[in-house]
This record gives sequence, structure tokens and C-alpha cells, in this order.
Amino acid sequence: MKESLIVPPAIKDMTEREIDQFLTCARVGRIGMIFEGKPHIVPVGYGYFERKIFFHTCAEGMKMESIRSNPSVCFQVDESISDASLAKSVVILGKAEILRDKEAMLPYLQKLIDKYRVSASFAQYMTGGNRNVKAELEAVRICVITPERITGKKIIRTNGNF
Amino acid sequence: MKESLIVPPAIKDMTEREIDQFLTCARVGRIGMIFEGKPHIVPVGYGYFERKIFFHTCAEGMKMESIRSNPSVCFQVDESISDASLAKSVVILGKAEILRDKEAMLPYLQKLIDKYRVSASFAQYMTGGNRNVKAELEAVRICVITPERITGKKIIRTNGNF
Repeated sequence: MKESLIVPPAIKDMTEREIDQFLTCARVGRIGMIFEGKPHIVPVGYGYFERKIFFHTCAEGMKMESIRSNPSVCFQVDESISDASLAKSVVILGKAEILRDKEAMLPYLQKLIDKYRVSASFAQYMTGGNRNVKAELEAVRICVITPERITGKKIIRTNGNF
Repeated sequence: MKESLIVPPAIKDMTEREIDQFLTCARVGRIGMIFEGKPHIVPVGYGYFERKIFFHTCAEGMKMESIRSNPSVCFQVDESISDASLAKSVVILGKAEILRDKEAMLPYLQKLIDKYRVSASFAQYMTGGNRNVKAELEAVRICVITPERITGKKIIRTNGNF
């Protein structure tokens, strides 16, 4: 098929392994939610472990309110280079669950520290400054998304003929 | 406020001018829609002109079906660097309208060629190969989103103390 601006290029499905790798490596995901009857998108740093997506968030706010009232969410990650000759997008439909118990949250917080901060244990990371660890833990929640459907698409234009 | 992994860092509102510049420069946006009662996200290349967002799409498919049945959409753009010391996100809630008339679509297609392809007029761009311009134009639609609410947030961590 001739690729063009206005006729869509050949889009291929990503394999399960490609999707796993992409979800492991990407830095920013987006949560799609329904809030007050309208679609909303919020970007998050996230982790991917045992086929689940997780992120941390404030205990209060639009994200939490939305998820509490409707746990059906979309999680999406995409990446592309600026000439659009390579583009990937993974879309997950799933159910979101909110964790607030400290012991339940700690393994997830550790994984987020590993991915986005420094090589340190949670206890080491939280040491220093005048941190109130107890208050910080009370103000945070972990949201875990269990996928019900995962699709991954990629566009690779290798012929230089857009 | 002390910034940390688990207490959210200071988040600032972007000015109208910052939002305009960000929407003009960013390469990929995401459309949030409600389809069959669930939130969906689809990435798109897009243009921004006279405070409207537009993108091109196939005449048929989930995006079109979803927008036809519920034109309330979310459009979102974000960008960040990998250590998360700078992150921006703009979220638009608005109404989507679908254009199918050739004369109405041409100015938008031209802007997308200008942004994503080469410096050429639509007529020049479509010349060459064995292109069936008429058939391509019949297969494409332009979707224009008129914003009802625009919010822009940014996080700037300048103190090295995450």
C-alpha cells in the first residue's frame, strides 16, 4: 500500500513481548477517565510489574475522585520520532484499584524510586531533610490498574516515501 | 515546600501564552473519548490554529464512531525530561466536529503537510506516484476541536532536591 499523509500507513500489531518491553521502558503514561460524564486525560509516571500498571498519586484530587466513582480506566503510552517514521502506542482498558495501606504501598513506591529517582531503599530515600515520613505516607495512594484488554500498534515507514 | 517522591511537588499554572506556544510546538497529542461507556485514548499528530485543535483521520473507525456518538472529547499534550525535573501538560475539554467537504478540509491538510511533511503545496505534495487524490480525499476526514476549557500545568524542580 502506498503510504501518504491522508491514507493511513500500514499499521501493525505489536507482539506481546514488544508490548511488555515498551511498557517497561516508557517514562510517561496517560490515564483516561470519565469524570462528571466527560473524558479526561492525566499524565503519570508509572511502573509496570506482573502485567499490572501502577502509579502514585495524592489521596485527594480529581484522579482519585474519578477513579473512586468509576474504576474503568484507560492507560496509554506512546512514543514516536519527530518525522513520524516510527510510532508506537499501547492502549490498556482496565480496572483501577486504590491502595492506602503502608505495607501494601511500599513495594510499589520502591519500584517508582528505582525507576524515577535513585538507587536507594525506600527507608534510605526518605532519610534526610526534615521529612515527615508518616505524614507523607498518609497523603499518598498507589493506584494499580489490572488490564482487561491490551492492544499495541506500531507504524514503521521504512521506504522514505511518506 | 519540600519536594519528594510521594508529596507532590509545587505545580504551577501555565500562562495563556505558554499554553499557546506549547500547543504550537508539540508533535503528538492524545484524544480522550468515551466509547461504549468506557474511556479511550488515541494518539494523533495534530495542528493548532486560531485556538482550535485539528487532526486528520480515516472516515471510518473507532475514533469517528466515538466522536459521532459523543462529540465531547479531551485533547491532551504533555512533555517531560526523563528525570522529571521539567514536565508540562495541557488538557483541553471541548467539542469535536468532523469535516468531510474537500474545500473545507484543504486548509487543514495543508497545515498538517507544513508541520509533518515537507515544504510543498497540497497539490505538489499529492503529485507523483500513482496517487488517486480523489479517492484519498474521500477516505479522509478532518476533526476540529473547539476548546471549552483549557488548563496547562507545569512542574519545574530546580533545586536538585527531588
